Formats: sequence, structure tokens, C-alpha cells
Amino acid sequence: MSFVVTAQSMHFPGPLPLSSGATLSDYSLAYETYGKLDADGGNAVLVCHALNASHHVAGVYAGQPQSVGWWDNMIGPGKAVDTDRFFVIGINNLGSCFGSTGPMHPNPATGRAWGADFPVVTVEDWVDAQAALLDALGIRKLAAVMGGSLGGMQALSWALRHPERVEHAVVIASAPSLTAQNIAFNEVARRAIVTDPDFHGGHFYEQGVIPRRGLRIARMIGHITYQSDDVMNEKFGRSLRSAVEGAAAHTDFLYSTQEVEFQIESYLRYNGDKFSEYFDANTYLLITRALDYFDPARAHGGDLRAALARATAKFLLVSFTTDWRFSPARSREIVKALLDNRRKVSYAEIDAPHGHDAFLLDDVRYMGVVRSYFDRIGKELP
Amino acid sequence: MSFVVTAQSMHFPGPLPLSSGATLSDYSLAYETYGKLDADGGNAVLVCHALNASHHVAGVYAGQPQSVGWWDNMIGPGKAVDTDRFFVIGINNLGSCFGSTGPMHPNPATGRAWGADFPVVTVEDWVDAQAALLDALGIRKLAAVMGGSLGGMQALSWALRHPERVEHAVVIASAPSLTAQNIAFNEVARRAIVTDPDFHGGHFYEQGVIPRRGLRIARMIGHITYQSDDVMNEKFGRSLRSAVEGAAAHTDFLYSTQEVEFQIESYLRYNGDKFSEYFDANTYLLITRALDYFDPARAHGGDLRAALARATAKFLLVSFTTDWRFSPARSREIVKALLDNRRKVSYAEIDAPHGHDAFLLDDVRYMGVVRSYFDRIGKELP
Repeated sequence: MSFVVTAQSMHFPGPLPLSSGATLSDYSLAYETYGKLDADGGNAVLVCHALNASHHVAGVYAGQPQSVGWWDNMIGPGKAVDTDRFFVIGINNLGSCFGSTGPMHPNPATGRAWGADFPVVTVEDWVDAQAALLDALGIRKLAAVMGGSLGGMQALSWALRHPERVEHAVVIASAPSLTAQNIAFNEVARRAIVTDPDFHGGHFYEQGVIPRRGLRIARMIGHITYQSDDVMNEKFGRSLRSAVEGAAAHTDFLYSTQEVEFQIESYLRYNGDKFSEYFDANTYLLITRALDYFDPARAHGGDLRAALARATAKFLLVSFTTDWRFSPARSREIVKALLDNRRKVSYAEIDAPHGHDAFLLDDVRYMGVVRSYFDRIGKELP
Repeated sequence: MSFVVTAQSMHFPGPLPLSSGATLSDYSLAYETYGKLDADGGNAVLVCHALNASHHVAGVYAGQPQSVGWWDNMIGPGKAVDTDRFFVIGINNLGSCFGSTGPMHPNPATGRAWGADFPVVTVEDWVDAQAALLDALGIRKLAAVMGGSLGGMQALSWALRHPERVEHAVVIASAPSLTAQNIAFNEVARRAIVTDPDFHGGHFYEQGVIPRRGLRIARMIGHITYQSDDVMNEKFGRSLRSAVEGAAAHTDFLYSTQEVEFQIESYLRYNGDKFSEYFDANTYLLITRALDYFDPARAHGGDLRAALARATAKFLLVSFTTDWRFSPARSREIVKALLDNRRKVSYAEIDAPHGHDAFLLDDVRYMGVVRSYFDRIGKELP
């Protein structure tokens, strides 16, 4: 049982100018904090979330023992990121469906839910909104900003947009931009959602329906790309659906194209179903697009070294050998560009079997690397 | 311009018993032949097709210069598989939508289209049906059976089911079974089709609709897995939609979640659209399931060596370094199991950038390997 935490929300009068040229007239951000901010505000660690997560990074909500934060194995009292020492902030991004201003909230211009009219937000927009929260909390400079996957992109973006406010950036299982294949998977997921007849052009809330079919497909695709082929083979292999899933165990094929035949199928269907019950379709579109757009080298003609010249933070990068979504090679691109700029960089390539998901899982070496790094950060604190 | 060919069809009174226990009371097979059968019937080469192909392997149809067969670069007069020397047979599998008996044909029991009631067919069923065609053509033993991907599985299955009828088996970019990840991708594609409201439980023909949304998603997923990340990056990278696709060229983001932003998106959408216009949804389900089920080692407790002991043919296996759908490691499993049985095996691992699609493309080394192998087969002919 983890420590009990409470979600908070802060309203900002805005306006927040966005990368697209649009502005949000005002907005709210959901967030949580763990630990205690030092008097000089110097021990703050901002944690940025990835695609389907939220500000609920660690701990549990009172009376809800299942509500464990998504990085609770990493962050908490005595953990790798020790909340006895650091003041950790989990924040929910704009456009999310977990509390911060997003597509299901009213569009001030119409009074109706934004739906698909919610403005496209970028990693940079998120960072700017996060900066406003830090201002309000009285945090001038972060001891560290950290995140995995899309969260790692935000940590990198922090080091570029607000170099003077970041002492350390911890970028885990991330990439300096998506590859064509990454974008392709995102696009298939988006098309599945957008072409679901229940999507109604993104204004399904007022129709009382949810584009569940599309969300299920999107999540199933996501799940495949989060895991390594090896781990899937080890967990499911070619095993047939068994009694575990509530159906009668069988040892021979059903010879059916629509029934569940293999365990991997029931796993995917189960996860797709679950996801479609809690995740918002418009949020999925927005967040995958933020991933697509992220590319700090773009403004520098594709030169990542030039793009990262602005960053003054010290960096920890971590990648996982079997991550084929954001492969170690992509982390190494960042490492190289930082080293070319003579920045201080630590890099760990963890030999873990779990693919991209590894960044969320317990791994002794991975946790050890992060713990050591934060111990060092802690020692630097005044 | 290639040589002119004509599609043929043959009706079989049946019944054909299927792996599932069902039987097809009668059936027709579409096929094509190129070259001339020797008097002793010894120069026949059977070509098995993969997921979305057909009996139209080589040549063009009269007056249709665009109708080039899918392996026309490999097969024809003077080509790697030389139709001046070999009698080549292209065959369309049961359950297909390109001419052989399939879901859009009448179910004799009801007089209405089979739709989703078409019996599930396996690689083994296809091989048995192909054998009936060879009987009718007077071919006792094949000089070679060959195929890529799912076609390679059929070639392997031929060597196991009818060892006495196969002199050589040529198995290209294939695998002894699907991995969990392979099955997972198939399952997502199937769910996209089956949950399309226009699927109508597989009886959409009589509704006058087509589950296009699902077919598009299925094809987009397929396309991603057929190509290597590197080739996608080289072809499309992060390039924005350009004038090539008929839209105005633009150099900045549109900031839209639904419009085409990147070239890779318009490529995928274009291919998805095109596929949904010519491919049948029920056929897609059947063929992906045949892939899922193929696993000759299964009847031998997972022991591929034991499973391949029946094969007496000589083998050529070819794999491609960047094929992540059916990786070289999977071909090597087959090679090893054959060598463990002291069979004659040639194996080429071609360093090609194109991923799984490489088996359909021109590559000097690949074509050279196949040409040499068939030269050798030719020399063995009486």
C-alpha cells in the first residue's frame, strides 16, 4: 500500500498562445504534489506524462487501493525519486481527459463541449502551460524535469524552452522526433477513431455515444508497439485461449475468424475494451498529434546538434534494448547531439526484454540508474 | 511489356474435406499457366500466393497493359524462373476474392452468398485443393513449388503433405508459424473489419455495402508491417504532404488532427482506399486466419525438426535482413530443422532495405540466387 495523495486543480486566466496560432482564453491544470518544497524552492521535480497517463504519478487516492499512480514504483518515500527529499509534481496536460482543460470541457465561444474543435496542442504548448503552474507554485528552477516516452519529449523541450529553469533533464525511452513508422501507427489509430460512425466529426458527446470501436483498435495497435516481440512470445506465444479468460479451456482450434482463438487475441481485446471505457477519443487524436509534431531539429534544418545548443541542463537518458517504438538509437541521437554541444550527459541502455513498456516497469538496473542519478541531484541541493 | 496470358478456371466436383472438419461439396480454382509442360510432366513449377495476391503471377492480360502479374519480375521467358524451360502454374486459393470459390459465391446449402459462413480454410486445405488441380493437369511431381510469405508456408506444407510430389521447395520470406506479434497485427486488422457497422456479421453483400473503413485500417496496418522502418524513413521520413498528392505544397504544419499532414499519412490513406475497393472483407479474415493457424510443429509438440522429418524435397530458403514481419531468424528455424533431418538446403539471407516487401521487389542478389537455383533445377530435368 502506497502513500495517500490528493489531486488538485489550478485555474489560469490566460490567454495561452499556442504553437498553432490559436489561443486558449483560460485553462485549468490538474496536478498532484508529493513531498515538501524546500524554502528556497530548489528541490522541485516535475514529472511529465506519456500518452495515456495523467498527473496521478504516485501514491493512491484515499479509500481507492487500486488507484496506484503510474510511476509509483519509481517515485515516493524512499524510492528512486525520493519524495522525502524532493518535491515532486505530477501534471496533467492540456487536451487530456483526466482533469486539465480538454475536449470535453465547454468551449467558451459556444458554451458547448469543444469536441474536435479543441485547438491542437504541442509538446511546447504543454511545457508553457506547465511553466505557468510552476510560477504559481513559486518554483523558479526545477531540480529536475523527467518523463518517459512522450514525457521524455516534454523534459527535453523544457531544457530547450526554459534552459534557465532546468538543472537536470531526465529523458527516458524517448526520441528527438517520431520516425515515419511511428507516425504511421499513430495515423492508423487516428483513422480508426475518426472513421468510427460514432465519432460524429468529434462531436459525439452531444450525441450520447462514444467511438468505442475506433478507440479499441487504437489501443490494440498501441499495445503491440509498446511490447517487444519476445515478451509477447514469452507471455502468450501461440497459446490458445484458456480457462483463464473465463471460457472453457480448449486444446484444439475452433476454426473461426471472429471468435477468440489465441490468448494474445483475448489480451488485446480486453485491453482495447478497457481503454475505450475511460479514454477520450478527441484526447487520443490530440496527444498522438503532439507526438507527431515534436521535432526540435526542424527549426534548425534538421540539425539536432544546433537545436540542442540552447539546452544548458545536465541530462540523464535511458533507453531499453528491446524498445522498437523508440529504439536506443533514437536516444543515442540525443546523447550525441548533447555531447557535440559539450553538455553533461549520462546515458544508460538497459538490457530489458519488455520493449517500450519497460520504462514503466520494475527493473533493478533501471531503477538503480535513476536512483543513483537522483542521489547525485540530491547531493547538489543546497 | 510482358507476355500475354489468360486466366483459366477449373471446376472440381469435390467433396473437399477441410482441416476444420467441414467439407466443400464442390469448388472451382482460378489459375494461369506459363510455358509448356514437358511430355513427361516433369518441368512443372507451382507458385503459391500470399495474402492479397492471386493466380495472376506473371504476364499481362490482353489489352490491359497495367495488369502485370505480381511476380512478373521473377517469372517469364528468360527470367529467373524461365518459362521457356519451366511450365509455371499460378493458382488462386480457396476463399479468395479473385476467382476461386470464395465467400462471395453462392453457398449451395442456401443459394445465397457464403459471406462469413464460408468455411475456415488452412494452408493445408489450400495445398490439397492445389493437388487436385495438378492431378487434373496430369502433373505427378513438381520440379518445384515456390512462394513468398504465406506462399512460402504453402510451399513448405506441400513438402510435408505430398513429399513424393515435390522435387524442390522454394520458401521465401516465410516462417514456420506466426509469432504472437504477427497474430496480434492480424487480430487488430480483423477487429477493424468485423466491428465496422457495414460488415453486418459478414453478410454485407446482400446489404449492398462494403466494410470499407475496416478494410482501410487493415490495409494500413499491413502496409506498415510489410516495410522496414528505414525504408519508410527514406521514402517519406517526416516530409509534409506535398503537391505530389494533388494538394497545394506546404512547408508549415496545418495543426490538424484529421487532415493529412505528413506524406506517410497520405501514402497509407491512399493504399487503404485502393485496397478497400478491390479486396473482400471476408477473404481478408479467412487468409489472415490461415496464417495464424499454420504451424506444422504443433502436431509434434512444437518440435519443428520432428515435423519436417517427412519432407524429402530439396529446399531453397531466402530471407531479407530488414524483414521484421518474418525475420531471417524464422527462416533459419526452418533451415536448422531441415539440416537436423539431413535434408539438402540452400539458404540466402539477402541484405535488402525493403523489409518484408523485398520478396516482391527487384534485387540483383535475390534474383541471382533464385535464377541460379532454378538453373540447377533445370539441369536436373531429364
